[in-house]
Amino acid sequence: MNSKRVNIAYIGGGSVNFGWKLLSDLANEEICATVYLYDTDKQLSLANEVIGNKFRENPDTRSDIIYLAVDTAEEALRNADFVILAFSQGSIDEMVSELSLPESYGIYQSTGEHTGPSGIIRALKILPVYINYTELIAELCPDAWVINISNPMSVCLKLMYEIFPEIKLFGSTNELYPTLDLLSGTASREYNTENVRRRDFKFNLLGISGFCWFDELTYRGEDFFPVFRKYAEKYYETGFEFKPNEYRTSPFASANKIKFDLFLRYGLIPAVSDRLAADFCPPWYLKSPKTIQSWKFSQTTVNYIKKIRLDRLSRMKSLMNGDEYLRVGSGMSDCALQIKALLGQGNLITNICSLNTGQIDNMPPGSIVQTNALICSNSVRPVTAGRLPDEILALTLRHTLNHSVIIRSVMERDLDIAFNAFLNDPLMTAELNEATALYREMLTAVRTHLLYYC
Amino acid sequence: MNSKRVNIAYIGGGSVNFGWKLLSDLANEEICATVYLYDTDKQLSLANEVIGNKFRENPDTRSDIIYLAVDTAEEALRNADFVILAFSQGSIDEMVSELSLPESYGIYQSTGEHTGPSGIIRALKILPVYINYTELIAELCPDAWVINISNPMSVCLKLMYEIFPEIKLFGSTNELYPTLDLLSGTASREYNTENVRRRDFKFNLLGISGFCWFDELTYRGEDFFPVFRKYAEKYYETGFEFKPNEYRTSPFASANKIKFDLFLRYGLIPAVSDRLAADFCPPWYLKSPKTIQSWKFSQTTVNYIKKIRLDRLSRMKSLMNGDEYLRVGSGMSDCALQIKALLGQGNLITNICSLNTGQIDNMPPGSIVQTNALICSNSVRPVTAGRLPDEILALTLRHTLNHSVIIRSVMERDLDIAFNAFLNDPLMTAELNEATALYREMLTAVRTHLLYYC
Amino acid sequence: MNSKRVNIAYIGGGSVNFGWKLLSDLANEEICATVYLYDTDKQLSLANEVIGNKFRENPDTRSDIIYLAVDTAEEALRNADFVILAFSQGSIDEMVSELSLPESYGIYQSTGEHTGPSGIIRALKILPVYINYTELIAELCPDAWVINISNPMSVCLKLMYEIFPEIKLFGSTNELYPTLDLLSGTASREYNTENVRRRDFKFNLLGISGFCWFDELTYRGEDFFPVFRKYAEKYYETGFEFKPNEYRTSPFASANKIKFDLFLRYGLIPAVSDRLAADFCPPWYLKSPKTIQSWKFSQTTVNYIKKIRLDRLSRMKSLMNGDEYLRVGSGMSDCALQIKALLGQGNLITNICSLNTGQIDNMPPGSIVQTNALICSNSVRPVTAGRLPDEILALTLRHTLNHSVIIRSVMERDLDIAFNAFLNDPLMTAELNEATALYREMLTAVRTHLLYYC
Amino acid sequence: MNSKRVNIAYIGGGSVNFGWKLLSDLANEEICATVYLYDTDKQLSLANEVIGNKFRENPDTRSDIIYLAVDTAEEALRNADFVILAFSQGSIDEMVSELSLPESYGIYQSTGEHTGPSGIIRALKILPVYINYTELIAELCPDAWVINISNPMSVCLKLMYEIFPEIKLFGSTNELYPTLDLLSGTASREYNTENVRRRDFKFNLLGISGFCWFDELTYRGEDFFPVFRKYAEKYYETGFEFKPNEYRTSPFASANKIKFDLFLRYGLIPAVSDRLAADFCPPWYLKSPKTIQSWKFSQTTVNYIKKIRLDRLSRMKSLMNGDEYLRVGSGMSDCALQIKALLGQGNLITNICSLNTGQIDNMPPGSIVQTNALICSNSVRPVTAGRLPDEILALTLRHTLNHSVIIRSVMERDLDIAFNAFLNDPLMTAELNEATALYREMLTAVRTHLLYYC
Repeated sequence: MNSKRVNIAYIGGGSVNFGWKLLSDLANEEICATVYLYDTDKQLSLANEVIGNKFRENPDTRSDIIYLAVDTAEEALRNADFVILAFSQGSIDEMVSELSLPESYGIYQSTGEHTGPSGIIRALKILPVYINYTELIAELCPDAWVINISNPMSVCLKLMYEIFPEIKLFGSTNELYPTLDLLSGTASREYNTENVRRRDFKFNLLGISGFCWFDELTYRGEDFFPVFRKYAEKYYETGFEFKPNEYRTSPFASANKIKFDLFLRYGLIPAVSDRLAADFCPPWYLKSPKTIQSWKFSQTTVNYIKKIRLDRLSRMKSLMNGDEYLRVGSGMSDCALQIKALLGQGNLITNICSLNTGQIDNMPPGSIVQTNALICSNSVRPVTAGRLPDEILALTLRHTLNHSVIIRSVMERDLDIAFNAFLNDPLMTAELNEATALYREMLTAVRTHLLYYC
Repeated sequence: MNSKRVNIAYIGGGSVNFGWKLLSDLANEEICATVYLYDTDKQLSLANEVIGNKFRENPDTRSDIIYLAVDTAEEALRNADFVILAFSQGSIDEMVSELSLPESYGIYQSTGEHTGPSGIIRALKILPVYINYTELIAELCPDAWVINISNPMSVCLKLMYEIFPEIKLFGSTNELYPTLDLLSGTASREYNTENVRRRDFKFNLLGISGFCWFDELTYRGEDFFPVFRKYAEKYYETGFEFKPNEYRTSPFASANKIKFDLFLRYGLIPAVSDRLAADFCPPWYLKSPKTIQSWKFSQTTVNYIKKIRLDRLSRMKSLMNGDEYLRVGSGMSDCALQIKALLGQGNLITNICSLNTGQIDNMPPGSIVQTNALICSNSVRPVTAGRLPDEILALTLRHTLNHSVIIRSVMERDLDIAFNAFLNDPLMTAELNEATALYREMLTAVRTHLLYYC
Repeated sequence: MNSKRVNIAYIGGGSVNFGWKLLSDLANEEICATVYLYDTDKQLSLANEVIGNKFRENPDTRSDIIYLAVDTAEEALRNADFVILAFSQGSIDEMVSELSLPESYGIYQSTGEHTGPSGIIRALKILPVYINYTELIAELCPDAWVINISNPMSVCLKLMYEIFPEIKLFGSTNELYPTLDLLSGTASREYNTENVRRRDFKFNLLGISGFCWFDELTYRGEDFFPVFRKYAEKYYETGFEFKPNEYRTSPFASANKIKFDLFLRYGLIPAVSDRLAADFCPPWYLKSPKTIQSWKFSQTTVNYIKKIRLDRLSRMKSLMNGDEYLRVGSGMSDCALQIKALLGQGNLITNICSLNTGQIDNMPPGSIVQTNALICSNSVRPVTAGRLPDEILALTLRHTLNHSVIIRSVMERDLDIAFNAFLNDPLMTAELNEATALYREMLTAVRTHLLYYC
Repeated sequence: MNSKRVNIAYIGGGSVNFGWKLLSDLANEEICATVYLYDTDKQLSLANEVIGNKFRENPDTRSDIIYLAVDTAEEALRNADFVILAFSQGSIDEMVSELSLPESYGIYQSTGEHTGPSGIIRALKILPVYINYTELIAELCPDAWVINISNPMSVCLKLMYEIFPEIKLFGSTNELYPTLDLLSGTASREYNTENVRRRDFKFNLLGISGFCWFDELTYRGEDFFPVFRKYAEKYYETGFEFKPNEYRTSPFASANKIKFDLFLRYGLIPAVSDRLAADFCPPWYLKSPKTIQSWKFSQTTVNYIKKIRLDRLSRMKSLMNGDEYLRVGSGMSDCALQIKALLGQGNLITNICSLNTGQIDNMPPGSIVQTNALICSNSVRPVTAGRLPDEILALTLRHTLNHSVIIRSVMERDLDIAFNAFLNDPLMTAELNEATALYREMLTAVRTHLLYYC
C-alpha cells in the first residue's frame, strides 16, 4: 500500500445509494486516505461517517480510511487530492413535476436523467451549483483529480472544463453493468455454464454518457458479436430476460428489445440499459404508454424512487447500530479502482467520460465522450475508439450540440438560450406554442433553483 | 467576347421551367457556345432548340449560341466544356404518392424536395441516374465544369464527388431570390423608395442547400440587421407580405412568419423561403394543416404543379411559332453568369453548393455546404464563411448525416440502410412500426425507378 | 462617396517610405476621413501632416481627408474606425549588427525581415511594442479595423490575435508587386505588347507572409503556367531580367533564378521576390557570398538603406515647401483600396494575411496565412485556397511553428524559449555552442529594446 | 494456452540478430503456432528452423511452436494469422557507400537508419519490396495482423496503409530499451538499490519512430522527472554513463549528453538513444567528427557491423549443433507479447507505431506516429497521447512531410520527387548543386535495387 495518506473530498457524502457502494468499494482496495464527507444534509453525512468508519473493524477491509463529516464544502475541498462529486439537486417531490408535466403534453420519458425536457431542466438546476464547486476546486485544490458521478454527466463535465480548463477531471458511471450482466446471462446460456464474470468480456466502447456502444466485444478472447446476433434475432419479438415479467415490477428491468432493435439496425451493441437508450432516441420507443409496453421496459416512477429511499433510510439505522454491515466490495462502481490506479498501483483499463481530444475521431473536439481509458499513476489517457457510424452519430450529435447550447445558456444566465435545446430534443414533438408553454411551466415548478439566472 | 466556341451539355434540356430561364439568361451574356440539349423526351428538347435559336434574331441578344437537340446523353457530353444537370426523375403523378402517403401517417411536408419522407424517396429514385451520368462525365468530358441544378441538391453533389473525386463540380440554386425580394421590399418600405435592387445587398451566406442563412447582411454598405429585426418584431404575429393573402392562392407566397421566428430565436436571417425552411425543421411549422395555416404559408399541391405545367406547354407552342418571345435575361438563375466567369470574363462573387474543405469551419469535411464563392477563369473557390451557431448546426447536421447514410445505401444497393435516414428525418414522428410501413408503401409506389437496387 | 467622416489612426505616421505611398493612394479613393498621424519622431509626422494636407489642393484628388499629427498613440487610437500599424523598431544602425553578426558565424541572409537570426531578433524587439498597442486598441477602439503593415508580419498578427481575440485584424503587404511586374514583363515579351497591366493576372495565392505561392494563374482568362514554364526552363541558367545586371546595383533587383528553381522543383510559382524566398529556405541560395552571386540576387545592405533614407529626407523638404508634389495614386499598396471596400464601396478581391480558419486546409488552425480574401462592407473573408504541396508545407511549417515559439517566449517574458526558434531556423547551420554565442551577441546588441523581458 | 494453432509468417526469417531475439521471446509465451520462415537466403532460414525447433526440447519453453523454412514468401503468407516483416534490403557492403558518400560532402550521420541522406536512399531501396509484400498480404492473408520491424519504420508503414488501407498493421520497435536501461541505472543510483526493473517505469510516449519522447514518467508510482532533471543538470557537461568510455568502443554506448541537452531545452525526455536522436535533428550534434566526439556518442561503423555479423554467423553453427542454446526470453522485443495479447490472453499496454487517427492531437491525420497502445483480443487501439510541444513538433513534422514526399516518389516511380525530401532533411546542409551531385552518386551506388523506378 502507498503509505502516504491522501485526502478525498466527497461532495454529496450523505448518499444512501451511490454512497454506500463507494464506501464498500473503497474498503476493498489498498488505499490509505481521509475521506471528508460533505452534504447539504449534515445528518446524512454524519451517518455515513459512522457507517464508513465501521469498516475499520471488518477483517476483510484492505483499506486504511478515516471518514469525517464536515460542515462546508470548503472544509472538504481544501488540500484535497481527490474530489468526488456525487449529489443531486432538488427533492424527490420535484421529480413529480419533471416527469408528469411533459406527459400532459404527450411527451413520455423513461428516466429523464440526461435528456428530454426533464434532463434539460435538471441541467439548468444543477449547473449553477457546479459553477460554485468548480471555482472552489480551482481555488482550494487545483491539482486534485476530480471524479464526477452526478447527472446529467456530459453537461456537468463540459461546464467544469469550460470554467477551469486545467482541471484534472473525468466522469465515472455505472451504466454498463446491466448490459454486462445481460451479456453474462447470454454467455451462461450459450455455453451452459454458471462461471461467467464481467471481466471475461473485453470491448471497445464509444459514445456519450447514457448512450454508448460496443463495436468490438470478446468473451474470453473470442468474438461475441455472432452470439449476440443469434440472440437478438431469436428474441427480437419476444425479448430476452432472466426473470420473465420482472420489467413489470421493477423499473430497472427490461426484456432488452430496444438493444436488439438498435443492434439489428446499426450493427453496434448498445452498452446501456434499454431505458437509457430510449431517452436519447426520437420517440420510437416512448411515443405512448402503449408503445412503451410493447417494447417491454418501464419508466422510472416517483413512487418507486420514494419507496426505495424509505427502505434505505430505515436500513441506515441498522448500519449505524451495527445490526447490519455493508459488505466489502459492492462491485457496483469503478471509482475506487480508479483512485487506486491514479495512486500508482498498476495500470487500469476502465471506461470514463472526458473531453474529446481525438479519442472519437468524428465527434467534435471539445465535446464530452465516453470511451475506454488507461489510468496509471496520476495519468488518465483515453484510448482511441475509432468512429461512430453516421446513423448513430446523427442521434448523438444533437445531444452534444444541445449540451453546448445549455452551457451557453448557463454562462450567459439567459434561459431563452436553453429553450432552443429544449426544442431540439428528440423527444420534443410538440408544436412551438405548446413547447413554449411546457418550458415555462417546468421552469416555474423548479424556480427556487433558478435564482442564479435572475 | 472570348472568341473560342465552347460546348455546353444540358441534361434535362427539354425543361419548360428552369430551361427557359437558362436560355434567356445565356442570351444576356457574351458567350460563344454550342448548347447540346438532351432530354428523355426528345419532343421537348427539340422545342427548346427552336426556342433557343430564336434568340439569334433578337437584337438584345449578346451571346452567340447555337442550340442542338441530341438523341443521347453521350452525344451531349462528348467533349463538353460545361455540363448542366437539371432534370427530374419520375412523373408529376408520382408526386401525388410522395406527398399524400406521409400525410396518411400524419406527416405533412411543404415541398418534399430535399428532406422529409418525400425528399429521401426522391433521392433514392434519382441517384442511380446520377451514377450513370457521373460515369459518362468521367469518361467523355472529365475536364468539364459540371453545374448541378437538380434536387435533392446535396446528395446529388455528394454522390458525384464520391464516384469521380476529380470532378470540377458545383451546385447552383435560385433559392435566395424570394428572400432577396423580401429584403428589397423591406428596404423599399423602410427607406420609402422604389429604387432597390437585389445587388444592393451584400451578405455572408452559410448552411446547406435549402437551409442556409445570412450572418452578415448590408444594404448599400450599411448593416441591415437592425432594420430586419424591426420588421421581424413588428410583424412576428401578423406576418409581412406585399400582397395580403397571396399565400392562400400561390404555394410560393408566404407571410415570412417562419423567417421571423427563426431569426428571433437564432439571430441569423434564413436565406430561403419559409416553405423550404419548414421542411428542414422538426414539425414546428408542419405538425398539422392547422399549424401550417397559422404560420401563413402553403404546401406544394400537385394540382398547382399540374396547372402550371399545362400553362407552360401551351405557351411553348406560341414560343415556337414566334407568336411570343422569351425576353433576354430572366434574372432568375446565376448559371449563365457563372459560366461567363469560368470563361475568364471577370471575377464573380456568387453563392454555390460544394464540398466543404474548410469554408464552414464546424461542418464536417466532405459534407456539402452552401456559401459564397469567388469564380474566375477556370477556378471556383468558396469564401470562408465562419461557423454555424450550435442551435442551427444541430438542425443542419442531422440532414448532412442523413445524406451520408443515403449515399451509402445507394453505393451498397441496400435500401435498408436508407431506412435509418428516413427514421432520422426531423419530420418523422411516427413510431417504428408505422415508419416501417410508410417506407415500404412509398418504395412500392415508385418501384419502377428502383430496379438498380434489386 | 460615403459622406460620414471616419477616423484613421496611423501608427508610424512619420514614415517617408510606406507613408508617402499610403498618402498618395488614399488621395486616389473616394474616402472621407481624418487621419491621425502618430510617430515616435513628431517632426516626421508633422512633415507628413503638411504633405498629406497638400493633396486637398490637387485637382486629381478624389478623397476628402484631413491629416493631423498627434502627440500620443492614445490620441490617434481613441474612437478610431481604422488603425494602420506601420512602424519599425530600432535605428538603421542597429541593422548593421543584425545583418553582420550572423555573417561572422557564416550565416548569410538576404533581408532578415521575417526569418533568420535577424528576423527572430527583430520579432523579439518589436513584439513588446505590439502588446502595448493591442491593449490600447482593445481599450480605445475595440471595434476598429486594424491593418498591419510592419514586419515580421506573421508574429505581429499572431500576437495581436492572442492578446485580443475579438480584434478585427488583417495584414496587408506589397510583396507581390515585384512578381506581378516580372509576370507582366514575361507577358509583354511573349505576346509582344506593351499593354499589360497587373490586373490582367488573376490567381490563387497561398502560403505565409514573405513566402507565398501561386497555384493558379491566368492572364486575361488564359492559363499562364505554360508560358511561365517556358521562361523558367529557358532562363533557368542565365536568369531573366529586364535590365541586365541591375541586380548588381540595387538590392531589390534579381534575375529570378530562385523563382525558376523553386517553380521547376515544386510546380508552384513563388509569388514573392527571390530575396524574400531565399530567406525562408535552407541555405540553398545563401550558403556563401559566392552562392548568392551565382543565383544573381543581392542582400540588403545597410549602406543602401541609409542612402535611400537620406535621399527621402531631403525630398521631404521639397514636398513640404511645395517645390514638388506626390502624385495621386502610387499603386504600391492595397491599403487604401481595402479601407474603401470596408466602407462598403463594392466588393474587393485582395490578398491578406490572417488567422487560418480553414482557408489553407493543411496549415494548422490558428496559424497566420496569406491568401486571397473578399472584402466588402465591414467584412473580411478569406477565400479557400486549397492545400500546400507537402514539400512546400515542410518549408513553411517550421516557420509557422517558430512563430508559436516566439510568441510563447514573449508572453512568458523568457528569451530562452525563443532560442529554440533561433536554432530551428533553416538558415541556422551553426553547431549548438556557436548558435548560443551568436544569440547572446545579437541580444546584447539590441538590449535597449529588450527591457520588457527583464 | 489458446489451443488453436495459428500461422505466423516471418519474412526475413533467416535473421541472426532480431530473429534470435524473437525465437527466444516466442518460446517464453503460451503460444501455439507454426512459424513459416522465409528469407531470400534459404540457408539462413533453414538454420533458424533448426535453432527454433530446439526450443521444444527446452524445459523452460512455454510455447508449442513448430518452425518451418519455406521457399517463397507466398508459402509463408498463405493463410497467415500473423505476419512479421523484419528484413533488410542490400548488403552490408552497400552500407559503406550510404555512410561514406555523404561524409565526402561534409554530412555526418550516426545511424542513417531512418533519416539523413542514407535513410532516404534506404527508403527508396526497400519500399518497392514492400509494395510486393503488401499486395501479397492483401491477396493471401488480408485478415492477418501484420507487425513491421524493418526500418525506415514510418515510410514502410505509411506505404502499406496506402496500398492496402484495410490492413491490420502496426510497427514494433526496441528503441526504448536503452533509455529504459539508462533510467533504471539512474534510479539504482538515486535510490541506492539493484532492484530496478524496466516495468517499474510507466510513461506516456509520443513522437515518431526513432524520435519519440516521454512527457509523463513515473517510477513505482512516483514522478521521475525531478530525478531525471537532477541528473541532467549535474551531468550535462560530463555525461552520465555506467561504464566510462564505453562509447569509445561500442557504437551503441553513449554518455547521454544529447538526451540531457534535449530535455533541458524542451522539457520532455527523449525516449530513444542519443545516436538516433542526433540523426533527426539539424547538425547540432553531427556537424563534424569533432562535434560528435564532444557529445560523447559514436557513429555506426561498417567495420563494427561486419564484425558483429561474423561473430553471429560463427555462433549460428554452435546453436545448430546444440553446443550452445538460446535462452528462453531475451526481453529484447515486445513482439511475442503483442502476438499473445492479440490472441486474447489479457490486456497489454505496449508502445507501437501506427496511423495517426487522433492519438497525437497536433500531428496530421494519416501520419505515422509512435505512442502507447492497448492490445487485446484481435484489437489494437492507440492511447491518446496529447500534443507535442511546438519546438519538437517543428523538428518532427519535417520528417513526417518527407515521408509523404518519399511515398509519392515511390507511387509515381519518379526519383526526382524524393530529391525534395533529400533536400529538406535537417542534416542536408550542402548547397543545391552539391546536394544534386550527392543524390546522383548515392542512387548510382544502389542502382541494382532501383529497377522498379525505371
